[in-house]
Amino acid sequence: MSSKIRIGIAGYGNIGRGVELAIKQNPDTELVAVLTRRNPETVKTLTEGVKVVHVDDAASMKDDIDVMILCGGSATDLPVMGPQFAEMFNTIDSFDTHAKIPEYFEAVDAAAKKGNNVSIISVGWDPGMFSINRLYSEAILPEGSHYTFWGKGISQGHSDAIRRVEGVQDGKQYTIPSEKAMAAAKSGSEPNLTTREKHTRECFVVAKEGADKAAIEKTIKEMPNYFSDYDTTVNFISQEELNEKHSKMPHGGFVIRSGKTGNGENHHVIEYSLKLDSNPEFTSSVLVAYARAAYRLAKNGDCGAKSVFDIAPALLSPKSAEELRKELL
Amino acid sequence: MSSKIRIGIAGYGNIGRGVELAIKQNPDTELVAVLTRRNPETVKTLTEGVKVVHVDDAASMKDDIDVMILCGGSATDLPVMGPQFAEMFNTIDSFDTHAKIPEYFEAVDAAAKKGNNVSIISVGWDPGMFSINRLYSEAILPEGSHYTFWGKGISQGHSDAIRRVEGVQDGKQYTIPSEKAMAAAKSGSEPNLTTREKHTRECFVVAKEGADKAAIEKTIKEMPNYFSDYDTTVNFISQEELNEKHSKMPHGGFVIRSGKTGNGENHHVIEYSLKLDSNPEFTSSVLVAYARAAYRLAKNGDCGAKSVFDIAPALLSPKSAEELRKELL
Repeated sequence: MSSKIRIGIAGYGNIGRGVELAIKQNPDTELVAVLTRRNPETVKTLTEGVKVVHVDDAASMKDDIDVMILCGGSATDLPVMGPQFAEMFNTIDSFDTHAKIPEYFEAVDAAAKKGNNVSIISVGWDPGMFSINRLYSEAILPEGSHYTFWGKGISQGHSDAIRRVEGVQDGKQYTIPSEKAMAAAKSGSEPNLTTREKHTRECFVVAKEGADKAAIEKTIKEMPNYFSDYDTTVNFISQEELNEKHSKMPHGGFVIRSGKTGNGENHHVIEYSLKLDSNPEFTSSVLVAYARAAYRLAKNGDCGAKSVFDIAPALLSPKSAEELRKELL
Repeated sequence: MSSKIRIGIAGYGNIGRGVELAIKQNPDTELVAVLTRRNPETVKTLTEGVKVVHVDDAASMKDDIDVMILCGGSATDLPVMGPQFAEMFNTIDSFDTHAKIPEYFEAVDAAAKKGNNVSIISVGWDPGMFSINRLYSEAILPEGSHYTFWGKGISQGHSDAIRRVEGVQDGKQYTIPSEKAMAAAKSGSEPNLTTREKHTRECFVVAKEGADKAAIEKTIKEMPNYFSDYDTTVNFISQEELNEKHSKMPHGGFVIRSGKTGNGENHHVIEYSLKLDSNPEFTSSVLVAYARAAYRLAKNGDCGAKSVFDIAPALLSPKSAEELRKELL
């Protein structure tokens, strides 16, 4: 009998495949099954001996899986899957619609308690590691300001928006933090910075043959919500160049807390930053670490929904408490 | 009756005074008493209405204090005070002799369990926030390397060593991280870097009248353990300049994790850094946040020694779980 943490993946897209790769890096975990909405016979996993099961048959896997990692999207998948799976399994998800987190938490909490499971929601880097750093630094420096910058990285939503513009064949959008705004955030002057001031947007666009490039550029730059509030650059390139230079999914960002202590005369800056070659693979790596925590909490009799704020760091590591104190403290 | 967390300070030096200032920034905490080895009548606190009690009379304060913050030194004070106080109070300390943490933990754990108290040891920034970041980043990127850099900042131990050199009237030493080594750490090549390669040392020395400056410089640069393994610069300056420009206690540093995911083709860098005007005031701010956690754990029936690894982030914040999810997740 295996003593490894038996993990299931629900949804086999970029995140699901990233979780599969992350499991290979964590010898105390093993991938047991992939759940999919597609015909299971058409899904080929990287890992030998993994069951592929239709998502409608999830309940049949109840006794074979310790933690189910939900790899669906936040817009339509997770609001349904989250509570539904939390009743059957310990779950981890990366729900990232910030404004809807409170109601999502409540729905997952009720289901997880009903099923006596542990569900850790909104795991990843933002929400996730960035959230933790906002919390730690605010708790340490209560008199101060915090700043979150994203990038440089591909924004999926903005890339999709570009591709919907008439005459556009393909496109990618990079969100770039402003050096000037970053310097201001760290200066100690605690400026108010708008999202526009903090970021610029750079687009790489492949125009369809004969399309009006000037019109495309104008449409992108004036697009409300997505681009109109930003300094936006539009570069037209060939499909070959887009494929060659812009097919990866890099991302990253910075959480900066600037605060004062004493009688206000001493200034401190806490900074956390990520520079990621692959946004989905990094997110997946965070998910697997939190699967370990969910497994341990559930084994310990805990249940209900949790966020990353509720998880003691030690629960994420395969090392024992003694090893951690000796090697990392 | 007050509903604030009633805090005691044991040891009224730089850290003790920093804790007093940090308590003023945290409205859910209040300073109740300062314990001192000096004659209590000679100690004047900044806060009105605070009892000053001789450390030998600590037991008399048992019912008046929720958490005692131990502000003694790690070399001789804490190995005795830690276990002694853990039997009487919930405690927080900043024990920082890395090699002795395992045995210190055991001693405090036994005492805390005997007294049914919670004691969080080795709180601050290293050990402390840096340790947490080593843990999180290693759990997320198990295939990788981590690097801790200290500085730019005053090293108390090295400054003391300078002042013991014959002919030296006064001196301060800055530990400075090497830009080149930092770049290598972030490059993804995962180099092996020695402490010498990672840091340089800069000394500001006031020589006594008529002292042999060349001999002082040679003695400092060749001093084993402290300087002989480093690129060391010695600058002779006047006492006035030392007082004016080098009397603060700045410090900081970097924890960098460089790791790979996927099939090793995607590289990621996680970086946490601190830039502190006042090392003791920042450390004290961390101690007070963890005092809140100790109070909550003890109220919840927990007991024994803990490290920062065992403390869920939410326990550090005065905000409710709902507020945290809404505002910071």
